[in-house]
Amino acid sequence: MSTPTEIARTAALASRTLKAVSGDDRSAALTAVHDALAAAKDEILAANQKDMEAAQALVDAGKMKQSLAKRLLLSDSKWDGMLEGILDVRNLEDPVGKVTMATKLDDGLDLYRLTCPIGVLLVIFEARPEVIANITALALKSGNAAILKGGKESTASFAAIANVVSRALATTKIPSGAIQLVQTREDVSALLDQDQYIDLVIPRGGNDLVRYIKENTKIPVMGHADGLCAIYVHPDADAAKAVKVVVDAKTDYPAACNACETLLVHQDAATTLLPKIASALLEAGVSLRCDSVSKAALQGSDLDSAKKLILQDSTEEDYNTEFLELTVAVKVVSGLDEAVEHINQHGSGHTDAILTESKETAESFMNRVDSAGVFWNASTRFADGFRYGFGTEVGISTNKIHARGPVGLEGLTIHKYQLRGNGQGASDYGAGKKAYLHTKIEDINI
Amino acid sequence: MSTPTEIARTAALASRTLKAVSGDDRSAALTAVHDALAAAKDEILAANQKDMEAAQALVDAGKMKQSLAKRLLLSDSKWDGMLEGILDVRNLEDPVGKVTMATKLDDGLDLYRLTCPIGVLLVIFEARPEVIANITALALKSGNAAILKGGKESTASFAAIANVVSRALATTKIPSGAIQLVQTREDVSALLDQDQYIDLVIPRGGNDLVRYIKENTKIPVMGHADGLCAIYVHPDADAAKAVKVVVDAKTDYPAACNACETLLVHQDAATTLLPKIASALLEAGVSLRCDSVSKAALQGSDLDSAKKLILQDSTEEDYNTEFLELTVAVKVVSGLDEAVEHINQHGSGHTDAILTESKETAESFMNRVDSAGVFWNASTRFADGFRYGFGTEVGISTNKIHARGPVGLEGLTIHKYQLRGNGQGASDYGAGKKAYLHTKIEDINI
Repeated sequence: MSTPTEIARTAALASRTLKAVSGDDRSAALTAVHDALAAAKDEILAANQKDMEAAQALVDAGKMKQSLAKRLLLSDSKWDGMLEGILDVRNLEDPVGKVTMATKLDDGLDLYRLTCPIGVLLVIFEARPEVIANITALALKSGNAAILKGGKESTASFAAIANVVSRALATTKIPSGAIQLVQTREDVSALLDQDQYIDLVIPRGGNDLVRYIKENTKIPVMGHADGLCAIYVHPDADAAKAVKVVVDAKTDYPAACNACETLLVHQDAATTLLPKIASALLEAGVSLRCDSVSKAALQGSDLDSAKKLILQDSTEEDYNTEFLELTVAVKVVSGLDEAVEHINQHGSGHTDAILTESKETAESFMNRVDSAGVFWNASTRFADGFRYGFGTEVGISTNKIHARGPVGLEGLTIHKYQLRGNGQGASDYGAGKKAYLHTKIEDINI
Repeated sequence: MSTPTEIARTAALASRTLKAVSGDDRSAALTAVHDALAAAKDEILAANQKDMEAAQALVDAGKMKQSLAKRLLLSDSKWDGMLEGILDVRNLEDPVGKVTMATKLDDGLDLYRLTCPIGVLLVIFEARPEVIANITALALKSGNAAILKGGKESTASFAAIANVVSRALATTKIPSGAIQLVQTREDVSALLDQDQYIDLVIPRGGNDLVRYIKENTKIPVMGHADGLCAIYVHPDADAAKAVKVVVDAKTDYPAACNACETLLVHQDAATTLLPKIASALLEAGVSLRCDSVSKAALQGSDLDSAKKLILQDSTEEDYNTEFLELTVAVKVVSGLDEAVEHINQHGSGHTDAILTESKETAESFMNRVDSAGVFWNASTRFADGFRYGFGTEVGISTNKIHARGPVGLEGLTIHKYQLRGNGQGASDYGAGKKAYLHTKIEDINI
């Protein structure tokens, strides 16, 4: 077994080689990984079976939720999706070497800003076994080396997949050390000290994981933390749209980070729109935790009396809770200002939506809510790399720097500045000497 | 006095207001700050006089270098430059609200990525008093609130300037809490815990400061650390260009982070180009610390015998040292590979240059050297926000995420995604349902 320092150093060395590998060669490596995985299906599914058996034993002993055990299964459809995903990433445009700025400082002194890989990523992710293939594809396509640590419940599946990836890379121009798997929490802990080799830590998981990582490393962290998404209903919202969007945002996939957890309703809509939305939500099996004002409004409305019976009282804590199930916290607010204030204070900066027919109100909401996604008359569930057209995503960042929102290949790159001169010195320029041109280079030919 | 928590909370509240202030109002605030500073010249110069007296006492007591004391002086030319700098920043294009991506997900479902302020910055900078005005201007122009801590040697000057800024902001649409000054190291230490309010720490200073900050905060850090810049001379370099560029990079301003500290010479150039470069450097008063191979090559060359006498021997440490004075470490390498390896291992990832007439060699160098700036036949001294055409800079980042190289207004922004819909739910899309368009929106009208 390699030590964490050796793993990090190996990754850094691989990263240097990887930076000089062409986009075609990186894509070819993804084809090789795809083909090798396809050929090793039996081997990998056998490993997955081991994980499933261990998980089922824990479920039987009451030590694991059945829902978690389900996520570990590499079903046929997940398997196919996993393989297809690798080819999807392969087919995306090369994110490396794009010119994002080109300025003529002077004749024969041209400045270019080009995208390049970040270097070495440490990615800590959940137990879904198919995720390792997805992250591998994104890392290699963007020219980054990656050290991977997946949830321990899929240890056997991860090891089998990593083995196949490693063997496949050995046949390509990508060094095998570009993708390494670590298996224990202790490994991760030691890797967090390797800031001379690792450039970015990407923890996918809850706030607790992200906070722990941030507290224990000097390496930059791109946190993919909780999603406490809210929808605010303005009195002028269209009733049909409001019902549609809120029900979709809450029920389409309640366990997702972009599901709606809090419903804020303008006081003037409490007796008009809220009963319609509440009725549809209850119909869809959603539990409503209401503050006193919203509950009173619903009790006084024409809502079915059976539905009135199952309304619940909310606590303060409910407005800070990511339920991840068919429960929503409801609150009546005095207006847009209070809604914005509530979201900025209680939300997680992930994605929040307003329902209104007024462009001006929507603009104000989208301008003032400080979240990665600010939506107008659309479900929070659209916050997703695939839906945004990024092909796929590493996760959804709630960071305020580098990448925010769904992170695709672009978020795994940084830039460098190339200056192409002809022997110039800075002392040639300045007061009484040559002046900088600073014109945009339109016809890029490097 | 406010506590650090109060200061951070005040900044966060100011930041929310600031995000809704228009670009014109932000620019108007810079005009107000400029005018107020101009009107308060006597008051501020009197405070600067106090700092100078305290500094001179320390110099006399042998406790401060004269060169540092000099930097504290707010001379007439620095004063004028400081005021002019505020107007320069004011006149730059508004960095907020720029559309950097626009995708039609479906008819009536439009996704826009817009630039927006990061939020609250904590900027720790050196003792030059004029810097506070520069950073204030950059922060306000980019819509960020900032908490500022400058070097203690300019305490009185900073307090006077911050006072004037505060009074000026009170007459504008920017809340006064948008710019706050803290005075002690203890304040900074306590502020590093305020990750719920502060979004980014920008330490301008040496590696030790940056490392200390990274070790003591969960807040993202944009480090402006040392510059250990190297120039590599390939045998096919043009001699005149090589002499010109190396001398400029070493002597134009030796105390700058973009000055050249290491000179790497291909073995085939050790007896051809190196003597010419060495002669010019020695002529300019530069001390050469040579490895045994370069020293032998120079001793055997036609270099003046007097110059041969003052060649020094290098130690390993010299190749890891940012001299910041007229000293350069010289080393002969076996070729491009060793030069790249040396730079990636010993450099600080700031700016490194190659001198060669071969495009292919230059491309390989620029591709493989992992630095913010990779230059071909141009002095490392060009690595600078003003020279790059950014108007000004917060500093030069050696980070591998968010902003790398000179950081201007763009580096002080992040983005948010706006989705503008018409009542759509994510459950409308997918297999057997509607498909995403993912077409680029060419005609942006929001």
